[in-house]
Amino acid sequence: MIRAAIAGYGNLGKGAEYALMQNKDFVLTAIFTRRNPSEISPVNKNVKVDSIKNIPDYKGKLDVLFLCGGSAADLPATAPELLKNFNCIDSFDTHAKIPAYLKGLDVIGKSSGTLALVSAGWDPGLFSLARAYFEAFLPAGVTTTFWGGGVSQGHSDAIRRIAGVKYGIQYTIPKEDAVRRARAGETGLTTRDKHLRRCYVVADENDRARIKSEITGMPDYFSGYDTEVSFITEAEFIKNHSAMPHGGLVLRNGKSANGSSGVLELNIKLDSNPEFTGSILVAYGRALYRLAAEGRTGALTVFDVAPSYLMPDGEKAVRELM
Amino acid sequence: MIRAAIAGYGNLGKGAEYALMQNKDFVLTAIFTRRNPSEISPVNKNVKVDSIKNIPDYKGKLDVLFLCGGSAADLPATAPELLKNFNCIDSFDTHAKIPAYLKGLDVIGKSSGTLALVSAGWDPGLFSLARAYFEAFLPAGVTTTFWGGGVSQGHSDAIRRIAGVKYGIQYTIPKEDAVRRARAGETGLTTRDKHLRRCYVVADENDRARIKSEITGMPDYFSGYDTEVSFITEAEFIKNHSAMPHGGLVLRNGKSANGSSGVLELNIKLDSNPEFTGSILVAYGRALYRLAAEGRTGALTVFDVAPSYLMPDGEKAVRELM
Repeated sequence: MIRAAIAGYGNLGKGAEYALMQNKDFVLTAIFTRRNPSEISPVNKNVKVDSIKNIPDYKGKLDVLFLCGGSAADLPATAPELLKNFNCIDSFDTHAKIPAYLKGLDVIGKSSGTLALVSAGWDPGLFSLARAYFEAFLPAGVTTTFWGGGVSQGHSDAIRRIAGVKYGIQYTIPKEDAVRRARAGETGLTTRDKHLRRCYVVADENDRARIKSEITGMPDYFSGYDTEVSFITEAEFIKNHSAMPHGGLVLRNGKSANGSSGVLELNIKLDSNPEFTGSILVAYGRALYRLAAEGRTGALTVFDVAPSYLMPDGEKAVRELM
Repeated sequence: MIRAAIAGYGNLGKGAEYALMQNKDFVLTAIFTRRNPSEISPVNKNVKVDSIKNIPDYKGKLDVLFLCGGSAADLPATAPELLKNFNCIDSFDTHAKIPAYLKGLDVIGKSSGTLALVSAGWDPGLFSLARAYFEAFLPAGVTTTFWGGGVSQGHSDAIRRIAGVKYGIQYTIPKEDAVRRARAGETGLTTRDKHLRRCYVVADENDRARIKSEITGMPDYFSGYDTEVSFITEAEFIKNHSAMPHGGLVLRNGKSANGSSGVLELNIKLDSNPEFTGSILVAYGRALYRLAAEGRTGALTVFDVAPSYLMPDGEKAVRELM
């Protein structure tokens, strides 16, 4: 059994806990939190909840630590410390900062004799794999990534900061016409070309015209995008807009040296973004455990992990999945 | 430079030659054939064509040998011999026989100090990767594979054996309704449920009724399938049905322990089946070269290969594709 623990118990931590329930070679040893442990209610009531301050006491008692904090502030601050004592896996998703984050953890892992696996979610993660395999298999071509339909937390927050907005949420949705153009090999599609921004807002009747114009005119976030704003009732908002669906697609159009076209497309549709991310984390947690057991140290990405490390039974996979 | 050679110069061998032209870290040293070498016209006129009988003379002069013979008779007979002297890669596609084929080559590779990589095409190959990653990321669920739209060689041959058929071709096409049902999580869809068989035939007017009924009633091949038969002119046949398009999709519908659904889908559409297969072979040829250089021997599948081995520049991939 792989002795696992979760550090950080928000939506992603809970998603990882659900995923561990489906992977019977793991045992969840503890959940660590910065909050008062008595405030945390794990899905499995029997799981121990402890303060993150006590984590050094667990040295030698954990095989894999799932880091489920945020990428903006939490992971860059905590991962380097935690990696000194534990093999750590995360879904760090600030794309531009991945190389530096990876390099920093690689140095710490190598000097501590531990192993980190970074950015093992769905983007980065599964979508990165698609981009890499697709480019390897069709080296002459263009790759386009679309996000959604799904909730953008940053854009939803931006709406909620507008005066008079009681509830607000924004869904990023790939534009069908842009998907068709990318399939046909068109290059240079911008994020604006590719996505529609659909907003649902709860607000008083007489604030609505102003709110709509503040949203559609907001620089960076909405200005220049196809933006749709719908005003709905509070009841409707709570009923229909409390989940965290997401999805997207990675599409490559390439040509052989003989001019023949190939179109490769990965398309995902998720009811729950954090539960799917948690599930990928757990699959890569198995790989991390095995690679660490082979003596690997430092920091890796999903590109460094052979698929066989993800699967409970490699020989069965050759028989049944090849 | 990776010194490569191609054994077998049919459609796949030519596809591999085209793919090598797009991967500048390879040099194509020779093409080997069982035919008279003077009968072979490679795309690149300067490439040496030699008899397969002379291949032992190349020992120590090749890094990777691309085996481009057929899976039914050629590969099982030739791969064990060739692996004694060369690192070999193939797209062996008889699914049920892969475990035994792999095990046989593993023994030979280990005793010869060489490395084989088997079944590195698109199915098995890319589709196997999709099935494995999808199952690892959504362990509770069902995976369905659809083939086509594309030419089925076996079914086209079966049509051409019917008396009076001048030209005949069969396209296997996924049924949209079945794709929808698989996306929605339906299990137990059979090959017949999933695929339509569309046939184009050239024949004399007065043979047509009989030919159509022989096709639709043919056991195993067509009987019980949704089969469409269209009679066309010879000119139309030659103009529209001389290419080898193919494609298909791998679809997984899974649920988290909390009941949320995820649908993952890989969809490919190819103008040329052998050119895409050749392109995957070359990407894995790079991996084979690197793994052999690390001292690996025996036989591997695509499950054993980390994606970073496929890419010319791993650090660039982390920067640009993560």
